[in-house]
Amino acid sequence: MRGVVLHRPRDVRVEQRDTPTIIENTDAIIRLSATCVCGSDLWDYRGINPVTQPTPMGHEYVGIVEQVGSEVNTIRPGQFVIGSFFASDNTCPICRAGYQSACVHKEYVGAGGAQAELLRVPLADGTLVATPDLPSDDLIPSLLAASDVLGTGWFGAAAAQAGPGKTVAVVGDGGVGLLAVLAAKQLGAQQIIAMSRHEQRQKLALEFGATDIVTERGDEGAAKIKELTDGLGADSVIEAVGTQQSMMQAIRSTRPGGHVGYVGVAHGVQLPGEELFYSHVHLHGGPAPVRRFLPDLIGLIWNRTINPGKVFDLTLPLDQAAEGYRAMDQRRAIKALLQP
Amino acid sequence: MRGVVLHRPRDVRVEQRDTPTIIENTDAIIRLSATCVCGSDLWDYRGINPVTQPTPMGHEYVGIVEQVGSEVNTIRPGQFVIGSFFASDNTCPICRAGYQSACVHKEYVGAGGAQAELLRVPLADGTLVATPDLPSDDLIPSLLAASDVLGTGWFGAAAAQAGPGKTVAVVGDGGVGLLAVLAAKQLGAQQIIAMSRHEQRQKLALEFGATDIVTERGDEGAAKIKELTDGLGADSVIEAVGTQQSMMQAIRSTRPGGHVGYVGVAHGVQLPGEELFYSHVHLHGGPAPVRRFLPDLIGLIWNRTINPGKVFDLTLPLDQAAEGYRAMDQRRAIKALLQP
Repeated sequence: MRGVVLHRPRDVRVEQRDTPTIIENTDAIIRLSATCVCGSDLWDYRGINPVTQPTPMGHEYVGIVEQVGSEVNTIRPGQFVIGSFFASDNTCPICRAGYQSACVHKEYVGAGGAQAELLRVPLADGTLVATPDLPSDDLIPSLLAASDVLGTGWFGAAAAQAGPGKTVAVVGDGGVGLLAVLAAKQLGAQQIIAMSRHEQRQKLALEFGATDIVTERGDEGAAKIKELTDGLGADSVIEAVGTQQSMMQAIRSTRPGGHVGYVGVAHGVQLPGEELFYSHVHLHGGPAPVRRFLPDLIGLIWNRTINPGKVFDLTLPLDQAAEGYRAMDQRRAIKALLQP
Repeated sequence: MRGVVLHRPRDVRVEQRDTPTIIENTDAIIRLSATCVCGSDLWDYRGINPVTQPTPMGHEYVGIVEQVGSEVNTIRPGQFVIGSFFASDNTCPICRAGYQSACVHKEYVGAGGAQAELLRVPLADGTLVATPDLPSDDLIPSLLAASDVLGTGWFGAAAAQAGPGKTVAVVGDGGVGLLAVLAAKQLGAQQIIAMSRHEQRQKLALEFGATDIVTERGDEGAAKIKELTDGLGADSVIEAVGTQQSMMQAIRSTRPGGHVGYVGVAHGVQLPGEELFYSHVHLHGGPAPVRRFLPDLIGLIWNRTINPGKVFDLTLPLDQAAEGYRAMDQRRAIKALLQP
């Protein structure tokens, strides 16, 4: 089958890879209807995460089940399914508490490289969620978004306790940040401040429910958030970048007693203990337990309450994956959908 | 009046200080019935916080109101009162959300030096809570504990979401750590693991409700906590020290999705962003908003449900304050009560 492989920084190729097969009896093989490039793939693409060998890429997927292992009970061939980047048993105490991305049996699905025609998904019963029926084509981008970028933005909003009456700020205007805006809106937030200096992304943020746009960054950005929130800071701040600057911007934009939900994969971040102590914020985040949210998110997409697929502003055949990476790297595209 | 002044590291003196007076119309002056030495005073005493000039010490206090400013409405002379180390208006949005120690008008009461005969308390109406009546002498240590060490341990337990059915671990066996054990017990925790290698403190922890004692520290301590919690880590971990080691011990003892409540005043702590991200813990803490808990804590003490005053294992006249500092510095005493 064809699949995307990163050979060296900025050297992305679509090439023949081994067709995945059932390894464990709890596996499923799915034929991908769509996949995409993640903001976190850019850490590898840019060489910030070292790439030491040719690496199959991609961890976001929707598709039709081709085959299941002998111990798979609820997922069946022919179903249209969505799963997260972490496979989970969905029965251990950590899963039951809603942290499937830290399941005691978790496996990284992305190890199989989801930017491909076929994908092996471990722990299929605990990982995959089937749609009520085969979806119409126009729903596929939104269902794909649920696999990570929406699920992660939603977790960020939930971790930041976005909810009715709350003022929410979002640091980061990538797909995750934009969909954190959408999540905050759905969760009932009153004021939603998107931090962005990119016109097209500002527009989408407003469409998703942002009430204010702040273009300042760092401490100036935090000062602007305070100005917009009676000098107090936001109740809830979602961090969707993962750098030292963005984390500090998020913490300093939050009022005492408020909540920071951080979902940008942390790179080189060191949080100063004293400042954190005196900030009085709640801090929570990490790799999103997307599985917790999937049934609800699929429902909201299925009944067309939300349209998170709008973050895909570039659609390419799988063979042109390299252009998808380039466009996102250069911020010409928010997020690239790939059609196998 | 007499009061404790720190001149240089380890040079604590009781000397004549100016008698405090009403400065703002919202002030009260109270005559202290008891005061005490805080674990956090030892940061100054040991020279870890630089002491650049003679500094009045102490921020824990109970006593009888002598005088109030013209704008004080609810607090009256003759009342027995307890307050926190931060004065708060108790009406601003931050106070109403339960973060009185970050009140927009907060003032550090300890600036006046509570290890003394008299103390000026700003924002008396928002800061002080009166007991139902004058207390009997045996209740005074417990009421004094509510002013900080109990209120802080309680906040740690609340921030760590200690509650019914939860497994709780406590890092730190000072007064705050021990009273976090008591708080976790009152909040309904099922398993309470005190981390201590000091026999007398272990005994008090067990008396306050600890179900297990762990003597290991650092990563060995965290491994032991996992061993006691089905390999998962505790649901709730209270950090009551404030060092890099104790913070990491707390984070690593917590299960994914669990809560760390940190109340040890952070010194030189740098939290590694990547590890925090993948730990999936909730982190919350800071200077305890004691005022939030005071009415309930006073109630529990008044009806003799709890006896937090047991942490005072050394009682001295104010004039012997230096011995109180020495005994705590050398860990001969958990906490020294001073009688003005």
